[in-house]
Formats: sequence, C-alpha cells, structure tokens
Amino acid sequence: MSSIIRVNMTTHEIKSEINKDYEFLGGRSLSSRIVYDEVEPTCEPLGRKNKLVIAMGLLSGTIASSASRISIGAKSPLTNGIKETNCGGVAGGKLSKCGVQAIIIEGKSEDDKCYVLVITKDGYKLEVMNKLKYLGNYDTVENLYNKYGRKTGILCVGPTGERGLRGACIASSDSIGELKFAARGGLGAVMGSKGLKAIVVDDKGCNLITYKDKEKFIELAKDYNKKLASDPKVTGTYHNYGTTAIVKAVNGMGALPTCNFRYGSTEHVSDLSGEKMNELILSRGGEGKLALSCMEICAIRCSTIYPDKDGKKLVSTMQYENIALLGSNLGMKNLDQVAQLNYEINNLGLDTIETGCALGVALDMGYGRFGCIEDCMALINEISRNTPLGRLIGNGALLTGQILGCDRIPTGKGQGFAGYDPRALKGNGVTYSMSTMGGDHTAGNCFGSRATVDPLGTESQGELSRTLQIQIGTLDCIGLCMFARGPLFADASILANIVNYRSGSSFDKDTIWELGIETLKLEREFNIKAGVSPAHDKLPEYLYEEPLSPTNAVFDLTEEEMLKAIV
Amino acid sequence: MSSIIRVNMTTHEIKSEINKDYEFLGGRSLSSRIVYDEVEPTCEPLGRKNKLVIAMGLLSGTIASSASRISIGAKSPLTNGIKETNCGGVAGGKLSKCGVQAIIIEGKSEDDKCYVLVITKDGYKLEVMNKLKYLGNYDTVENLYNKYGRKTGILCVGPTGERGLRGACIASSDSIGELKFAARGGLGAVMGSKGLKAIVVDDKGCNLITYKDKEKFIELAKDYNKKLASDPKVTGTYHNYGTTAIVKAVNGMGALPTCNFRYGSTEHVSDLSGEKMNELILSRGGEGKLALSCMEICAIRCSTIYPDKDGKKLVSTMQYENIALLGSNLGMKNLDQVAQLNYEINNLGLDTIETGCALGVALDMGYGRFGCIEDCMALINEISRNTPLGRLIGNGALLTGQILGCDRIPTGKGQGFAGYDPRALKGNGVTYSMSTMGGDHTAGNCFGSRATVDPLGTESQGELSRTLQIQIGTLDCIGLCMFARGPLFADASILANIVNYRSGSSFDKDTIWELGIETLKLEREFNIKAGVSPAHDKLPEYLYEEPLSPTNAVFDLTEEEMLKAIV
Repeated sequence: MSSIIRVNMTTHEIKSEINKDYEFLGGRSLSSRIVYDEVEPTCEPLGRKNKLVIAMGLLSGTIASSASRISIGAKSPLTNGIKETNCGGVAGGKLSKCGVQAIIIEGKSEDDKCYVLVITKDGYKLEVMNKLKYLGNYDTVENLYNKYGRKTGILCVGPTGERGLRGACIASSDSIGELKFAARGGLGAVMGSKGLKAIVVDDKGCNLITYKDKEKFIELAKDYNKKLASDPKVTGTYHNYGTTAIVKAVNGMGALPTCNFRYGSTEHVSDLSGEKMNELILSRGGEGKLALSCMEICAIRCSTIYPDKDGKKLVSTMQYENIALLGSNLGMKNLDQVAQLNYEINNLGLDTIETGCALGVALDMGYGRFGCIEDCMALINEISRNTPLGRLIGNGALLTGQILGCDRIPTGKGQGFAGYDPRALKGNGVTYSMSTMGGDHTAGNCFGSRATVDPLGTESQGELSRTLQIQIGTLDCIGLCMFARGPLFADASILANIVNYRSGSSFDKDTIWELGIETLKLEREFNIKAGVSPAHDKLPEYLYEEPLSPTNAVFDLTEEEMLKAIV
Repeated sequence: MSSIIRVNMTTHEIKSEINKDYEFLGGRSLSSRIVYDEVEPTCEPLGRKNKLVIAMGLLSGTIASSASRISIGAKSPLTNGIKETNCGGVAGGKLSKCGVQAIIIEGKSEDDKCYVLVITKDGYKLEVMNKLKYLGNYDTVENLYNKYGRKTGILCVGPTGERGLRGACIASSDSIGELKFAARGGLGAVMGSKGLKAIVVDDKGCNLITYKDKEKFIELAKDYNKKLASDPKVTGTYHNYGTTAIVKAVNGMGALPTCNFRYGSTEHVSDLSGEKMNELILSRGGEGKLALSCMEICAIRCSTIYPDKDGKKLVSTMQYENIALLGSNLGMKNLDQVAQLNYEINNLGLDTIETGCALGVALDMGYGRFGCIEDCMALINEISRNTPLGRLIGNGALLTGQILGCDRIPTGKGQGFAGYDPRALKGNGVTYSMSTMGGDHTAGNCFGSRATVDPLGTESQGELSRTLQIQIGTLDCIGLCMFARGPLFADASILANIVNYRSGSSFDKDTIWELGIETLKLEREFNIKAGVSPAHDKLPEYLYEEPLSPTNAVFDLTEEEMLKAIV
C-alpha cells in the first residue's frame, strides 16, 4: 500500500504514514475525506489550521488513459467550505510511481523563506529556494527544471498564491513543460499561505504501483484505452478543438457570459470560436500545436499551443472557460486577446475563471472598458504590482464586487461562475448554487444534456444536476478525466472493474457511484459545519430579475426544484 | 396609536399604516421585529429586498430623561445578520411628536437622484435635492437647516453611505446641529443603497404623544429624572468626561486596543485620557464645551465639543470608543490627533469604530505608520477620493484585512471590535462572538463588571455577557440610553411602570426584561435563517494564540462557557 506524506510547514518536519482506512480511496474521495477528517470546519482558510491535501487517483500512474489527474483539497478561502480541484499534468502519475498516495501540507511556515518539497526515490525533503520568491509560474518551472531536471513533475504557485490572493490556483507541469491548473477555490492561496512555493517529483527509478490483479488490469485498461481512442468525441472534437469546441453552441443557447454576464451571446463569436482556434493554429503553424496530452498516458489529447501571427507560442492551453471568461465576458473580439490575458493570468498563478469574473465586475464598475485589451492588461498589471486594486481583483469576483459596489456579482457560494450563464442553462445554476463546490464548471456541468432537459425549462433541473454531480464526482474520486466518460459511462462495469483490479475493491457497475455519493455527502456535512449551507445556497438576486438577452430568460427555479440537487 | 410610515424607494410612494401587533413595541423591540417580519433573511443587504427600519422608543418625545433614542434596524452588510444600532439626537423625539412610531424604507430608487424624506405636521413627502449628492455630513446638515430650518431633526448619510461602503453609519443631528451616529453594522450603506440621503422632521405644531395614564407617567418620570440627575455617575463622570472617563481604566486592565490590537496598553495614555480631555476643554475654552445634551430631555449630558489650541471646535463628541480605535489603536499620541481623524470620519459618514479597526489593519499591513497622523489622513483622503484603497477601508476591517492579507483582523461576526481587547476583557469577547450583533460596544459590554467577574478569568463570562445582553437590550427596546441605567436597574419597577403608564402595557420589575429577551431571540432566529450562526460564532484565531501585553492573556474560554451567553 502506498503512503501518505505529511509535511508540517511550522516545524518543517516530514513523515510518512500508512492509513488502512484510506485503502480504497483516491482522488477526490481521498482528498475530501482527509480534509473532512483533519480540518476544523470553522478554521481560517489561510491560517495554520487549514491543510492542503494532494491525493492521487485510484488508477494514477498506470497505463489507463487519462487517469492520472491529481486531486487537491482544502477549506477554500473563496467559499469558506470544502474545495476539491483537480488537474492533469505529470505530477500525479509520477507521485504514484514514487509510492505516494497523498501529501498533506499542514501548519504554516513562520519564516519568510521560499520552500520547495522535493520527492524522489530516495525520499523527501524541504529545500529553501529563495530566488523563486514571487516569481511567475513559467520562470518558477524553468528554475526548477534547471535544478531538478526536465523529467520531473512540478506543482507550484505563482506570486498571487504566495501573497494569499483568494483567486490563486496551483499549476501542474505537463510533459513538455506547459502548465495545467488546479484552478478553482483559491487553493493556491492555501498552498502559498503555508510558505510552500512548489513540489517537485522525480520518479526516476521508481515504480511502486501495486495491483490486485495486474494481468486483468492491463487487459481491461487496454480495452478501455482503445475504446476511448476511437470515441468520435475524442477524435473528432478534442483532437481538433480541445475544450473550445463548444463556444458556438453555448453562444447559440444564449448562455455565453458576455460583458460581466450582461448578455448571453456575442457578435464576435466566430472570432472567438473553437473553429477559429483550430484554423489559426493550423494556418499560423510554428510553435502552434493541436492534440497534445497533458499527462503521460492520455488518448484524449485536448491540450493545445496557441501561436501568434509569427507562429510564436502565446499560451497553452487555450480552453473554453478562458474564451468565455476572458473573452466574451470582457467584451473581447478575438483569440489573440484571450491568449494574451490567459498567459499573464497563468503566469501570475490565478484561476482564469475567477479572475475573468473579477475583471468583468471591475469593468462593469468603470475600472476599464469592455473589449479594451489595454485596460484589461492595465488591471492585470495592478495585480503584478500588488496594488490595492490588484489585490482586490486577485481576491476574486465576490470581494471585488463587494468592495467596488457592484450589484451584479456572478458568484455561487463565493466562487465565480464558470462560462455558462445560469439563466440560459438553468441546470448549471442549480450546480453553482446547490453543489458543495459553488460556481464550478466541473461539479455538475449540465451543458450537453439538452436532449434530455430543456436548458431554459423549469423542470428536471435539480435531478439533472444531482445526477451529473454524482457521475462526474465519481470520476473525480477515481482520478479520471471527465472527457474519458464516453466508454466508461456506456459500460460502467469497465469503470468498476478497472478500479477493482487495481486496488482490490469490489465495486460493480451500480455501486461504483457510491464513491461519488459518499464523497459528496461528506463534503456537504463539512460545509454545514463550516457554516456554508443551506442559507448560502442562493444565487445572486439579479439573476432572478434581469432578463438575459437573447433568450430573455431569468433564473426562475423553485426552491423545491433546487433542493432535488442535494446528494 | 401612532403610525408607521412606509416609503417605497422604487416607486417613491409613501403610505401610513397602523399595526395593532406592534402596539406595545418600540425601539429595538420594534425595529428588530419589523426586520424579522418583513426582511427575507438571505436577501442581499444592499439590494432592493432589504429594508431600513427606524423605530421610536416607548418613551420617546416625553419628558422622561434620555429616552428618545432612535433605533435603526436592517440586515447588516457587515455581519450579514440582523443589526440594530441606536443613537441620540433630536429626530426620535420629534418623530414621536409627529405621531410616527416607525419608518420603513424599502425598495431601491432606480434613478440617480438624491432623495430627502420630509416629515411635518402636514404629512410626508420625498423631495429631490441633488445638490446634496456626495456631500459630507456637516454640509448636508447645513444645507438642510437652510432649507427646512434649524429646529428640525435630521437623519442623514455621508458620501460613503451613498457609495455603499459597509462601514457607513447614519448621522443624527442634536439640538445645536452637532451629530450623533447610529454607527454600527453599516446601516448607512443600506440607507444610501436605497437612494435616500436624509430624513428631515419638523415637529412644529405637533404633539401627538398619547398616554395610558398621563398624570402617573409625569409623576414617575419626574421622580426618575430627579434620581438620574443626582446619580453620582452622571454628575461626577458624564458631566466632566462624557464617555472618555474610562480610558485610563481600560488601559490599566491591559484591554485598550493599541496598534491594531497588538498591545493592551499605550504609553500615551495620559495624553489620551478623559482627564486630559476635560483639562483641555476647560483650559482652551472658546467653543469647547462639556456636559451637553444630545436630545431635548437628558440629564446625563455626556456630549462635548473638543476645541483646538485656539478654542475653535475640532469635533463633537469626543468619545471613549473614538479615543480607543482612532487613538491608541492607530498608535496616536494625543487627543488633537484623535479629534482630527474623528471629524473627518464623521463627515464622510463612517463608523469611527469600524474605520478605526480598518485603519489599524491597513497600518499593520504597511499602508502607513502607526502614530503618524499624516499617514492616517492620507488613507482617509483615499476614502474621500473613492479610490480602491479608500473603498477597501470604508468597507470595514474584515474586508480590508481579507484583501490586504492580514491574519490579525479584529472582528466578530464581520464587525470591527469595540475598544476592549477580548483577551483582557473576556466577557466582551463572549459578546463579540455570541451576541446577535457581533463585535459591538453596546450589545453586552462587560466593562465595569470587574467586581463580580474577573475580566481575565475563564469563569462566569458567558453568564455575565448574557445578563448584560438582556439588560442593555431591554433599554434598547424602550429607547433608553444605557447611561440612564443607574436608577432604573436599582429599582426596575420604575422601568416597568414608566413604560406601562405611557403605553398601557402591564410589565412589572421581573417581566420588563422579556422585552429584551424576546427581541434577542427573534434576532438570533433571523441570524440563523440568514446563515450567520452558530458556525460564525467564532473569534479570530490569533486571539487564541497571541499573548496580549501587559497581561499576556490569550482568549481561552471554552465553547461550553461561550454557549452560556446565548439568550
């Protein structure tokens, strides 16, 4: 059984332990469970009592495709409830190969040094690297590569995480040194508050992954990988557009956040679309690339490198949420503008969704003009310079709006909405409101369910959200990418058996979902103890009152309907 | 029976109504009851669904001394729970004489005009006075006096209330045009959010106060007035020092907030003391004055005018809380500095306690130097100029600390602590934490109870806080000043009978406290529905960990002890 590494940042001591109770847990089921077991629900999120938990998935480091996502949990400084945020990159697989089931970062360094946790086949140690202090994510990774080699996996925070800004995220390097982000909930601020700048993992010489039945596992994993690789969604959509394929569809539904969620569609949709991204990457060439994997084994390959006119890299990865929140939501007209904002926000170590929402609010209050890239870059420069206005925006949409006096703040449970206006995609409104995660894009995203539930209707939205919370939550608990769900949901016995063959559990196609259900229940219990729910299960008032063009929809679900979403 | 004036700021309609259910309610018992009955607990505090309720006391406008305080209630934008804040000034008595039991301000003006509610013997109307827009409190009152006469009573908000800053208060004019403040909880922002700049009341030709038994009332009121006027606390303390008499005592206990609650005493105590204030007012002469009344009938006369070296008025009224929060808490060295800050903050329409806490946090984070009046004036200038940093500070200590990254934020339930460090006066820690009001100075202030409960001890603090919450809460419900409590608590039958003779109720010396108890229970119920309690009943973590010099006390009460304070 793999072990848990416990790092006390107050004493700078590290120890390793094994917990039999956690034997069959991984990903979100493990990170949320440890937070539930160890973190005082009413503690200060950026204080020494909070803990940052990094948990590997149940299939992490194996040959199963898209299964090495890393799950990071803590009490969130944005929602004041529990938060789980997961991402790709190579650290998850490498940590699993090093025999690490989870890392618990606790306490808080009392000195002003910049710490890096280094994990190799020889063990683990905290090193001081003060030259990384307040360095942007890209330079941080470059410095760490120079010291520890380019085959390491890195998790790190940018200057905003070090400065405790609630919009901060945790970056995760991929195999070519590009970054993925455990973006939501401000967990970068939690990591930064502890004095930990980065975690470096070198799996050279390690392969400590164990199997209940390796032969059956490999057979089933190969079968699943093959099914996934031939899924038309994967080959047709993700390889060509990554996650940006849906821009036109969301715009067509009237749910694309535009100018601080004032409109549901933009006239610039063509120039912001996935089709345009694909066209530009192919026509501009150079460093531009489509269909990259973010982790060692992944058939989905939704990562991209978006180049400028001269073929020089602008940003990786251009994603749907970035186009929605940094593009249309800020009134931007083209993908070059989105890429420019995206790169800077990545480098500062902020969540693009939260920061896009916060920038939208700031523009709405007159701190710049919608559609003006210079004004937005000036606001981002305020964040770099750590000015009061910069700290405001870096702390997310809710605090930005409260301080600047905005009465249109697009947040759920204190967290900025993802790229779907809840008035025109009501199921997502339910998820933003009722899920344990707040305004999230993965916690139960109802986009794509139009065939079964009318996105503008008032019926079945609660049930839809609940079902998706459980389904995607279960994938989170295993450490699987949600884009791998095609073959797994088509035959859930694959999902159950692949987990069983790896870890010795005894799930079947019906009981595998209990992983998600149990985790969501624990999370909700934590939130209630933390004082977050149910009085905080409420969307902003303007959504109930202000019709959203072009559908003129308002958010009009009954409380009864909303309550159906509780797991 | 007097009537309730309901002002809809959305439609600009006003109507008058009578509610038999409220017949025996007044002050806090009425304002909190109306908020409980009419305000959706989860509504946005600065949105159209919140209501601002202004309620007259049960003895308001009569000859009973110190009994015409006005009670203002709403859902607070600072605590997100119910807030009652009361103050002196002449508006309360005058509104009672005009037959007004309460005013309910609801809705939200959708235009950008500056409205004034005018109440006279001829009725009530909303007038537009755009020249008052963003005017400071002192100029606002002067403008209103010029239009409506100097014998009117005025309630108004400064520019910070109009701008929705959560530290904003409501000013109330006294008989010489000086200002008292319904200071706590950010209710100035609620009034400002509705588009209402001021309420002017002219009671000329009105005396609509009714009595159950006028003769008995007058006889008992005269007896009470006489007792109060000869109370040594009144003649010895309030006439000479106002509320500033306790500076040395709190400093001696080690509970005087000093440099953002980092220390419990200051070396500058003599120059910040009530004795010094008395000496300076007497020696400087000129416009300086002691022992002024803030309302028509008041034997306590705790108001003062503090003059500069040339005898020119600097501020009225210099109070203990201002000396604590704007003086020692900011490292100030003398009363002239306190007076200068106090005047500017009054004029901007902010609560001096909340703003003193916010400024302390800002200085602690390096946005100025403790003890440097120029630095503090520069921060206040940021508020005047409505800059992001100014909006931050004007929004109170919690948001200031959260944005600037401070882990020492002196707040309870989101509201800045009053001038007593809870580590060295633990009963106040209980009140800041457990009362419905948060970090308040009147909701159950345990200063002065040293004879019965050791302020540093861990015993009996919950019970002490509870008793004081009920006692002072009951005075709030009647509209009586807490400094009048000497003769009233010595013989509570006076308290009961004077209310009975006025309104026809049938309280006795034991049951009169039910007014407070019932109100506190309603308030707590509102808070729980609003999602505020009990997970939010927690003081900041640093108080439990950082010893406070000179006593080296930490806050160390058990949860069991704290829970005893719940009414």
